Amino acid sequence: MMYTKDNAQTIYQSEIKKYNDYKSMGLNLNMSRGKPAPDQLNISSDILDVLNSKSNLIGSVDYRNYGILDGIPEAKKLFSELCGVRESQIVVMGNSSLNIMYDMVQRGMQFGVGGEKPMNAQGKLKWLCPVPGYDRHFAVTELFGFELICVPMKEDGPDMDIVEELVKDPTVKGIWCVPKYSNPQGYVCSDEVVRRFARLKPAAKDFRIYWDNAYGVHFLDEDVPLLNLLEEAEKCGNEDMVYMFGSTSKISFAGAGIAYICCSENNVKWLTKLMSYQTIGHNKIDQYAHVLYFKDANGIRTHMKKLASLLKPKFDKVFEVLERSGKGLMDWTKPKGGYFISVDLPEGTAKRTVELAKEAGVIFTAAGATFPYKKDPKDSNVRIAPSFPPVNELETAMEVFCCCSKIAWAEKYL
Amino acid sequence: MMYTKDNAQTIYQSEIKKYNDYKSMGLNLNMSRGKPAPDQLNISSDILDVLNSKSNLIGSVDYRNYGILDGIPEAKKLFSELCGVRESQIVVMGNSSLNIMYDMVQRGMQFGVGGEKPMNAQGKLKWLCPVPGYDRHFAVTELFGFELICVPMKEDGPDMDIVEELVKDPTVKGIWCVPKYSNPQGYVCSDEVVRRFARLKPAAKDFRIYWDNAYGVHFLDEDVPLLNLLEEAEKCGNEDMVYMFGSTSKISFAGAGIAYICCSENNVKWLTKLMSYQTIGHNKIDQYAHVLYFKDANGIRTHMKKLASLLKPKFDKVFEVLERSGKGLMDWTKPKGGYFISVDLPEGTAKRTVELAKEAGVIFTAAGATFPYKKDPKDSNVRIAPSFPPVNELETAMEVFCCCSKIAWAEKYL
Repeated sequence: MMYTKDNAQTIYQSEIKKYNDYKSMGLNLNMSRGKPAPDQLNISSDILDVLNSKSNLIGSVDYRNYGILDGIPEAKKLFSELCGVRESQIVVMGNSSLNIMYDMVQRGMQFGVGGEKPMNAQGKLKWLCPVPGYDRHFAVTELFGFELICVPMKEDGPDMDIVEELVKDPTVKGIWCVPKYSNPQGYVCSDEVVRRFARLKPAAKDFRIYWDNAYGVHFLDEDVPLLNLLEEAEKCGNEDMVYMFGSTSKISFAGAGIAYICCSENNVKWLTKLMSYQTIGHNKIDQYAHVLYFKDANGIRTHMKKLASLLKPKFDKVFEVLERSGKGLMDWTKPKGGYFISVDLPEGTAKRTVELAKEAGVIFTAAGATFPYKKDPKDSNVRIAPSFPPVNELETAMEVFCCCSKIAWAEKYL
Repeated sequence: MMYTKDNAQTIYQSEIKKYNDYKSMGLNLNMSRGKPAPDQLNISSDILDVLNSKSNLIGSVDYRNYGILDGIPEAKKLFSELCGVRESQIVVMGNSSLNIMYDMVQRGMQFGVGGEKPMNAQGKLKWLCPVPGYDRHFAVTELFGFELICVPMKEDGPDMDIVEELVKDPTVKGIWCVPKYSNPQGYVCSDEVVRRFARLKPAAKDFRIYWDNAYGVHFLDEDVPLLNLLEEAEKCGNEDMVYMFGSTSKISFAGAGIAYICCSENNVKWLTKLMSYQTIGHNKIDQYAHVLYFKDANGIRTHMKKLASLLKPKFDKVFEVLERSGKGLMDWTKPKGGYFISVDLPEGTAKRTVELAKEAGVIFTAAGATFPYKKDPKDSNVRIAPSFPPVNELETAMEVFCCCSKIAWAEKYL
């Protein structure tokens, strides 16, 4: 069946019948949140066994006591190895990379970046937001009053022609980027895109790249390599422009992991100076437990293979249903890792599709959430999060999604 | 021997001889940091046994996963019981109450408090600092550009006649206070002082009391009661003016505890709204481990008795040496709890005393550290931190201290 105006009535009638059947099932499914499923969390349970009351917790210092602002040496070693940076280029903190990113933006607002004036004192400023993207990124910079400028995502990363043009504006102070298995499309920045990021010559000296490598080792099958932005930036003397973030939120426990920032030694010095007013140090026992559990970067990669074996069937199931029931009507990405699949519905139907699904008991990420100000100009993009529900629920949820999308499409012609 | 000018030469000669003996001992002692000793930390070791890979971590939600911004219900219950507040009046976070306080000040600077303009946009502002006090408090508000106004501490708390006068100035936006076993004097606010705090009518609507109850259950022997400021403030409709802070840093592990803020429901609502941009939630597994270990507020109090049995002999040793070797020259406080003893040396001799001690291998908190801008106008106050060194080291360190103080005093007349 082709999705042409002539077929709209026929398609509507057939789908609304299915829809009513779904409604009568009393479904209660949630496809909105990029959170690990319990079976993924179970894989990390042994992390709770690596420390007990008999453990020696005296490393470089007594890890039970105060001290160590920048993270315990063992954790710096582990995550610097994982990220391919020097130990002098990393600060390991608590459980939330979002918290680190928020605080970095706030520090720029309050104290200024790179010796420039506090951003609070610089008038109206702008921030670049590759779209579709991560709603919590956009929300942070919206909160601080930045005008959010959309930059289209391409399969190899943000459109760098546009980025290079926009950073000529001295009021542009930063860009968000999830460089690998991006949220929501699952795209990976190509070497060329990473190098163009590294070579950027923004007009603003206090422009920073917020490189949120949230899914750096979150492959589903074969890993896709990502060039090291900090290293590339260093080659052009641009290393102060780069903040790279990561965490174990989707490696160990989503609510009880370890997060870190990688940046130049200059930036580490500036950051830890300001941090020294804020805290005496983050939880070193949590950091140490992670180190003892994973041992080294390869330990993390081996662990990720186990998680991938649980996630891949879920992604495959979503692809299968989209292939079966969405073809010809919608487009979707086929990520090789990460937590999301991005679906583009016919223009002007995303909100209605999500609304219909909700009425049938299936929650999807709100249409628009993947754009700044929650406004998708085409009302087309929906983020699918396959990780949490069991496979059998996924199948039903995605069938409901395709059914609702067809109804939303057909309604435009009726 | 009386400390009169006539005796200065004699005292100097006798003390300098002792001092040279100390120097030749090659001492390496540190009395500067208010951190728990290893034997205190050992008392909490079993907290590492309450959770393991077999534990059920599914409480109100799966505590391994994302979610719960304001702290797990069990932790809110535990600490609200300990603090005598409603569960709706507490937000439980990560390991550092300093971090919570810093962030609260920063939120006021950036977003404004109580609907008022951001403090960043209000010109030059002031903050009240009871002295002597806690250097990290003063450093936070100095960093944000407040003019720090000293308020004398009395045995029953800050001098409220002065506080009540100063808050008539609309540029005064806050006051630091460690209400119980204060740092460094160990004073406890009397009921009357707490009530005067509760009744304050500051000119600034965005004035806040930063009530850092860091030592709320840190008695050495009999506990001294402290009136509940939030409750008292509520009686006068003043509850939005109060932020109360606490943590388990000196209850469980100094580097891996749980911290919280107690405040009005209005303030909780405002705070969690802003927090929702910053994090998805703090480490719930750490919170849960604390709950399982302590069980209830009485569990914490019983635990504190064990810690007190280790701390009290240390305080007693310091008192003993001061009594023996400092009498007539210096004054000191005799706290019934907390982590510090405050010593007032003859005017103009604190810096020199600490310097002499350092040269003999004994580190004390820098003279001046207990005052804003690190400037003790009388150069007299030194904070003694007896918790970390073993008792035998304490005795030597305090003898060195008294010896150095006598030399510093005598030098003024030679």
